[in-house]
Amino acid sequence: MCGVIGICSDGVAWEAYRALLAIQHRGQNSAGILTMNDKFYRKQGDGLVSEVFQNYPLDELKGKKGIAHVRYPTAGTDPASEVQPLFINYPYGLALAHNGNITNCEELKGFLREKRRSLQTDSDSEILLNVLADKISKHGLDEALGQTLDLVDGSYSSVMLLGKDEGSVIGFRDRHGIRPLVIGKKETECGTNYMVCSESVGLDVTGYELVRDVKPGEAVYFSNGSMRSKQLHPPKPAHCIFEYVYFSRPDSVIEGQSVYEVRFKLGENIDFDKDVDAVIPVPDTARTAALGFSLKYDIPYREGLIKNRYIGRTFIMPTQRYRESAVIEKLNVIRKEVSGKRIALVDDSIVRGTTSRRLVNLLKRYGAKEVHFVSSCPPITNPCFYGIDMTIKNELIASKGTDGIEKKINADSVTYQSIDGLVKAIGLPRSHLCLACLTGDYPTCMTCERVKELGQARENERNNWKEPRR
Amino acid sequence: MCGVIGICSDGVAWEAYRALLAIQHRGQNSAGILTMNDKFYRKQGDGLVSEVFQNYPLDELKGKKGIAHVRYPTAGTDPASEVQPLFINYPYGLALAHNGNITNCEELKGFLREKRRSLQTDSDSEILLNVLADKISKHGLDEALGQTLDLVDGSYSSVMLLGKDEGSVIGFRDRHGIRPLVIGKKETECGTNYMVCSESVGLDVTGYELVRDVKPGEAVYFSNGSMRSKQLHPPKPAHCIFEYVYFSRPDSVIEGQSVYEVRFKLGENIDFDKDVDAVIPVPDTARTAALGFSLKYDIPYREGLIKNRYIGRTFIMPTQRYRESAVIEKLNVIRKEVSGKRIALVDDSIVRGTTSRRLVNLLKRYGAKEVHFVSSCPPITNPCFYGIDMTIKNELIASKGTDGIEKKINADSVTYQSIDGLVKAIGLPRSHLCLACLTGDYPTCMTCERVKELGQARENERNNWKEPRR
Amino acid sequence: MCGVIGICSDGVAWEAYRALLAIQHRGQNSAGILTMNDKFYRKQGDGLVSEVFQNYPLDELKGKKGIAHVRYPTAGTDPASEVQPLFINYPYGLALAHNGNITNCEELKGFLREKRRSLQTDSDSEILLNVLADKISKHGLDEALGQTLDLVDGSYSSVMLLGKDEGSVIGFRDRHGIRPLVIGKKETECGTNYMVCSESVGLDVTGYELVRDVKPGEAVYFSNGSMRSKQLHPPKPAHCIFEYVYFSRPDSVIEGQSVYEVRFKLGENIDFDKDVDAVIPVPDTARTAALGFSLKYDIPYREGLIKNRYIGRTFIMPTQRYRESAVIEKLNVIRKEVSGKRIALVDDSIVRGTTSRRLVNLLKRYGAKEVHFVSSCPPITNPCFYGIDMTIKNELIASKGTDGIEKKINADSVTYQSIDGLVKAIGLPRSHLCLACLTGDYPTCMTCERVKELGQARENERNNWKEPRR
Amino acid sequence: MCGVIGICSDGVAWEAYRALLAIQHRGQNSAGILTMNDKFYRKQGDGLVSEVFQNYPLDELKGKKGIAHVRYPTAGTDPASEVQPLFINYPYGLALAHNGNITNCEELKGFLREKRRSLQTDSDSEILLNVLADKISKHGLDEALGQTLDLVDGSYSSVMLLGKDEGSVIGFRDRHGIRPLVIGKKETECGTNYMVCSESVGLDVTGYELVRDVKPGEAVYFSNGSMRSKQLHPPKPAHCIFEYVYFSRPDSVIEGQSVYEVRFKLGENIDFDKDVDAVIPVPDTARTAALGFSLKYDIPYREGLIKNRYIGRTFIMPTQRYRESAVIEKLNVIRKEVSGKRIALVDDSIVRGTTSRRLVNLLKRYGAKEVHFVSSCPPITNPCFYGIDMTIKNELIASKGTDGIEKKINADSVTYQSIDGLVKAIGLPRSHLCLACLTGDYPTCMTCERVKELGQARENERNNWKEPRR
Repeated sequence: MCGVIGICSDGVAWEAYRALLAIQHRGQNSAGILTMNDKFYRKQGDGLVSEVFQNYPLDELKGKKGIAHVRYPTAGTDPASEVQPLFINYPYGLALAHNGNITNCEELKGFLREKRRSLQTDSDSEILLNVLADKISKHGLDEALGQTLDLVDGSYSSVMLLGKDEGSVIGFRDRHGIRPLVIGKKETECGTNYMVCSESVGLDVTGYELVRDVKPGEAVYFSNGSMRSKQLHPPKPAHCIFEYVYFSRPDSVIEGQSVYEVRFKLGENIDFDKDVDAVIPVPDTARTAALGFSLKYDIPYREGLIKNRYIGRTFIMPTQRYRESAVIEKLNVIRKEVSGKRIALVDDSIVRGTTSRRLVNLLKRYGAKEVHFVSSCPPITNPCFYGIDMTIKNELIASKGTDGIEKKINADSVTYQSIDGLVKAIGLPRSHLCLACLTGDYPTCMTCERVKELGQARENERNNWKEPRR
Repeated sequence: MCGVIGICSDGVAWEAYRALLAIQHRGQNSAGILTMNDKFYRKQGDGLVSEVFQNYPLDELKGKKGIAHVRYPTAGTDPASEVQPLFINYPYGLALAHNGNITNCEELKGFLREKRRSLQTDSDSEILLNVLADKISKHGLDEALGQTLDLVDGSYSSVMLLGKDEGSVIGFRDRHGIRPLVIGKKETECGTNYMVCSESVGLDVTGYELVRDVKPGEAVYFSNGSMRSKQLHPPKPAHCIFEYVYFSRPDSVIEGQSVYEVRFKLGENIDFDKDVDAVIPVPDTARTAALGFSLKYDIPYREGLIKNRYIGRTFIMPTQRYRESAVIEKLNVIRKEVSGKRIALVDDSIVRGTTSRRLVNLLKRYGAKEVHFVSSCPPITNPCFYGIDMTIKNELIASKGTDGIEKKINADSVTYQSIDGLVKAIGLPRSHLCLACLTGDYPTCMTCERVKELGQARENERNNWKEPRR
Repeated sequence: MCGVIGICSDGVAWEAYRALLAIQHRGQNSAGILTMNDKFYRKQGDGLVSEVFQNYPLDELKGKKGIAHVRYPTAGTDPASEVQPLFINYPYGLALAHNGNITNCEELKGFLREKRRSLQTDSDSEILLNVLADKISKHGLDEALGQTLDLVDGSYSSVMLLGKDEGSVIGFRDRHGIRPLVIGKKETECGTNYMVCSESVGLDVTGYELVRDVKPGEAVYFSNGSMRSKQLHPPKPAHCIFEYVYFSRPDSVIEGQSVYEVRFKLGENIDFDKDVDAVIPVPDTARTAALGFSLKYDIPYREGLIKNRYIGRTFIMPTQRYRESAVIEKLNVIRKEVSGKRIALVDDSIVRGTTSRRLVNLLKRYGAKEVHFVSSCPPITNPCFYGIDMTIKNELIASKGTDGIEKKINADSVTYQSIDGLVKAIGLPRSHLCLACLTGDYPTCMTCERVKELGQARENERNNWKEPRR
Repeated sequence: MCGVIGICSDGVAWEAYRALLAIQHRGQNSAGILTMNDKFYRKQGDGLVSEVFQNYPLDELKGKKGIAHVRYPTAGTDPASEVQPLFINYPYGLALAHNGNITNCEELKGFLREKRRSLQTDSDSEILLNVLADKISKHGLDEALGQTLDLVDGSYSSVMLLGKDEGSVIGFRDRHGIRPLVIGKKETECGTNYMVCSESVGLDVTGYELVRDVKPGEAVYFSNGSMRSKQLHPPKPAHCIFEYVYFSRPDSVIEGQSVYEVRFKLGENIDFDKDVDAVIPVPDTARTAALGFSLKYDIPYREGLIKNRYIGRTFIMPTQRYRESAVIEKLNVIRKEVSGKRIALVDDSIVRGTTSRRLVNLLKRYGAKEVHFVSSCPPITNPCFYGIDMTIKNELIASKGTDGIEKKINADSVTYQSIDGLVKAIGLPRSHLCLACLTGDYPTCMTCERVKELGQARENERNNWKEPRR
């Protein structure tokens, strides 16, 4: 889970900064902007966008082309060395900001070793950049990108800056289009500006209009007011459903679907048959689904959980132990809305179950008579290898089924969304979605062996993970 | 607007830190903790609590007694020198954390000059501390506090740490009890711990039980497991209504009233007669009132405005110019909930009107057919000199009446709460509330001259204000 | 060992900064400047003067009166809290920068406890400041200073800033005048400026002319272009000989005697009867004595030891272990000047002997045939309690006599200065010097018990000492 | 003027750090160490070695091979981007630390553009690294280095780290060997360690023995306990005389000649015919020459100028204005050694003359009767393009001859070294020295045009130079 931006505009640094703020939720671990005219200019660091660029004079990032990145640490062990965008100076000067996860890294490392390309980190982004560099040093750009899509398995909705001729900004997506990437356009006195961004909210805050999504298997090229497109591979769409359920901002539009509306419908589509006094959402993500749910079943909607905005973040903490404590510390209960009541507690999903159990216990401690847990997402049974931080199968509470799950989380009942309800809410053909975390059907080449390898690798990473020094 | 904490406990540093996080909304400008055993220990700095105490080993703050503070800059011009708690070493070692605003500073400065006490800042807190020091060096503690309450006009719900004998933590409120201050208690194996805190949420996160509010004109003393109380002056309650309307956290309980419930009733008590399609709250403060409002009038409640959590803060920015841009940058619109619709936009209050106008314009830009602005608070017509940052009369949009206000903010209509509705929602006797910002009746000795002086002073401060270097 | 400055001038901040640089050798641990007009202004921090004031806008230190300080950590355990100048706000606003060591701290602590004055550090400077504050709050200034000199035993050549009336800068010395303090004067267009400073080099770099030394037992007062003096006690001079031998800069003048000339004569006054090929000084302090020595005995002077300027500092490191390695790491040998030669190695003194032994070994490793160690100072047999960092008797290599000392340091011979030679070189009457470290005759009230207490206290401090975090 | 280090050892990081401290005088602007095992590890920053590596855990620099660098800013405009060692990842992973100056940068930039290699800075080191990368990607290592020496004109005594196979450290010098580079060796239990370093003092502090100098036109390769050498070009030695006169440390040995001894002889070789009372050196560089001079003419040697160690640095400041003030601020005068006396003031050289004049004036202000200026170096008449910071001809006071120079610097006479005296003191054949700054005969291909271009370039740089932010 990361966010990327590519911009071809007169105000590249400022727009990149503003758009990074808009997609900050996609990664709070580091941030960076890289621009170019004759040279390349870069500013990046660990921390929030506002921290990294605090007191930084943005006009030192010169030129009219740039890419930008926010990151949170899925893969790779050395946080400091992986702040993106990444840059290498041959050929031409080449920079990359990557969103997604490469799944055949070992294979690609062998390939690069043969090409005498040295890797400095365990980051899959560095691998992708070096494959691109090797291909571009030998082939035309389209050919090089096409071959890269052939070689590299996994998810990548990435942006690139190439120093050839006058420079160009390039956005491209793997053939499944697992992670989102949209195109925006803005007419100014100086001509036409273009932006590609992980989410449409990045366009909103900078005055760009949403043109369309980059297609799966497509590359788009921006240079001095013009855009060119090339379908590198026939698209086989498999868009991540978790972007709709949890990860993207509600005010984003992905593949033409408003995330807010999808979440509202998620609430409406849940089959629920308990008698309750109030619907309470887990703030902030579950609020929209809970509204839909409350409307459908005509149960009063109440803000019974209050969030302290000034305590860290939850899902994105890389260790289980840390994550567990963080979510609860942030929440306080409005006793009157809970005490003596039967509550439908709506959350976006149930991943590991630890947070869910703590939420239920919290409500009961404040006197809830019954707590019925409602998940706007179907049971998550399989790990994700495409960028969502639920990579270890045996950590998923539903990995072996949902029988008795209400006991595990101490609730009076647990109600899940159905897969059909989810697909209907999203409004795209089922065949165009990646439902791997719900079904185990991975859209890319995930042999049993690779699944095992990747699972093991992530477990190792997690164990080696150190909290960043900041 | 600040937050204060006083603790007498085995885990003073850690509890103070946790409680500061809980009341961080009361001041994001600086934070500090001061503790004592034989000596005094202090850690403080500019910035958020999490920034100031990042990487700081809390156990360097030794002892079992401590006070703490979060601040935002109302009064005083040199931010660096005013980070609280303040400390002076004579008599005994004496520290103060102050919430409120002193209104007769000039008079008190003269008094202190005579006493050969030198002031280093323009801060009213330093004045209060020195008055206390002078009195304590000459009288018994109760007498000294009593004389201080006589001398000092304005609002102060403050905590003090006194190094006499084994040390004691003292909480006291001016005779009107304008700013809140509650007492909490926790039994542990080691005995009874006590906490005083600006809001009850500070007790919640540290496991203290709410005992009661410190009474107006009362001082409470904590030392080694015991609590003593002294009514220094007959109470003349005048609790700030704006704590309920906007400033306190919804999960706090002030004077026995749940802020959440008060806000819900504020929504219910509004007289509204327009035909609209949806109720949209301005997040986050107006959400509860909007829910009550939606219920009362059976209008669908919708989250049509989405907040970006990663952009600064709004009300608390000390300059108008800065404040205006900040609020809007944070909000994005869900087009579907707005486009073509008649909207009741609920906000907690209308202060300067600039934000309100921008909100209305934002909704109209996204296609709202009508925007009816609903304020959960009656018209704010007079400045506050007791700690809320609306100190300059001619900046208040309703200072000369509310005629034509809908035009000024570009809304189709503006509906205000009535004063009766407000009082009923709070549930305390009208005579126990400070309604000065709504009526101009100030509970303390505010001569015309003093009002003018203070207004002028604040204006000067604002003009001299420099954004802190961080 | 510290350095102090007091200035009454139009350019106080800049002059204080320049003078601090000039006396930086007196303390590299922290630095600070405090100035006043209506208020007090302060900037201080850990580290070198250049580090503390790096990027600091000196004109934020307003006013025409100020005091300044450089410190190294003899006494006290918490480095952060003791950065000087110290300030308290009652009475009047009072600041102190202290050079020296108080020897009856325990007694004074009792006195201050009675006066309800709270101490926050173990620093003797804080004690001195509080005694002054107590006295000044009750008596006229002269009387207060006089009583302070009565009460406080030990060495103190200090400067004070008092916020009474228009403010004044005050310099004063204990009745023995153990540590140096000189008065300088500069006429400018704006009137007469005054400076007091630990060493005359502070006057040189700021264009002040040396007027005279502050007398033992005297206080001098500077205010707005005028100077007043008051002999508080009959002087009983006992000037520290180690200032001449090692501590002061060679270009300083103390009690009318040029340190450079004293050191030159120290070299000439040594009785030496060995046959050697060359004189090699230990840089930088011994260079002058070695020149005098070389001239007297007509032995070629050679720079056989080269110092790396970029490695830390030696004498001033507070732990033995650290100190030992530091001095040698800095030195490299010119093989040609040493190999096969008989060397007279001149150092300023022999304190613990560890450095001396390492120096001898270093020369022998480079092939020196003989190494005759020459100390420009007589044997140091007793601890100093007045500010020189040789406080623990059993660490002094000559504390039990000098028999066999050449073996202990692996030299072929050791030649010491005689006390007569030292006294003659300094050129002051023997009765006007503090020779305590050579004779054990302490000029102040040092009972056996107090000696023991102090020795123990210092040993404890050293064991508790932590290297500062920078 | 920079310093470089290459190490093949078990303790690479620690040894690199210690050796950097030893050659810190060669550049105080930035420092860096880069090591490798499977990956590359790097720590670098602006400032002194001790600042950059303060609190840095050296064992994070893993592996047994590494290179290191200290830099001061001759060429290039953006200080931040040029901290060395430089690294690029293709081919193999390749790092460089460079000492010297490339003189045909424009030509080489064209070459690299053709090879699609993008340059990010104006640094000549980046050019050298990219030429090497291009060559190594196409040829064997020896061939690649040989071709690089053909292509690249100017001075470069550099070290390289190549990630091929198990990695190797490579040191090489241009065919003239203008800048120094020595080889050291240390036998340990784990095998044989090797170091190359700009000066032999780097070997001394880490326990390496000086083996020999890298020959002009030679490359030496170190890998896992073995050393290999290749003479890439027939040597045409032209060693820089200024290393002996001023730049290197006196305890270094260059081309077999002890710098200390050379300086001593420089003092002896000066022809001097004035009657003076004392010889005073300008500390610290001129001390050795002054001793030789004093011995030769039997004039008493006196330390009449005292240096404040705590004020910045002199020669190395990149702007004239800054440089001028710095040197004098550091010096104080011993009046007794100067007043009423005829002084021979010995300095290492006269470059711009501004410092010399200020020194003379300083002595006269303290009462010197006569000041005879003695330069241990002959008149500097031509700019240096090989790394010494005297690149602008019209800034050199002797560029148009030395007639009347004593008036320009206000001295009673000026005595220069002769070129013969200099050559004899160094003890190498005249044909093996670069005397370009004295004669204008440049050893490399310096056409008039190139001289003009380079002079202009340097002037531009200087004008654009900004003091680094630290």
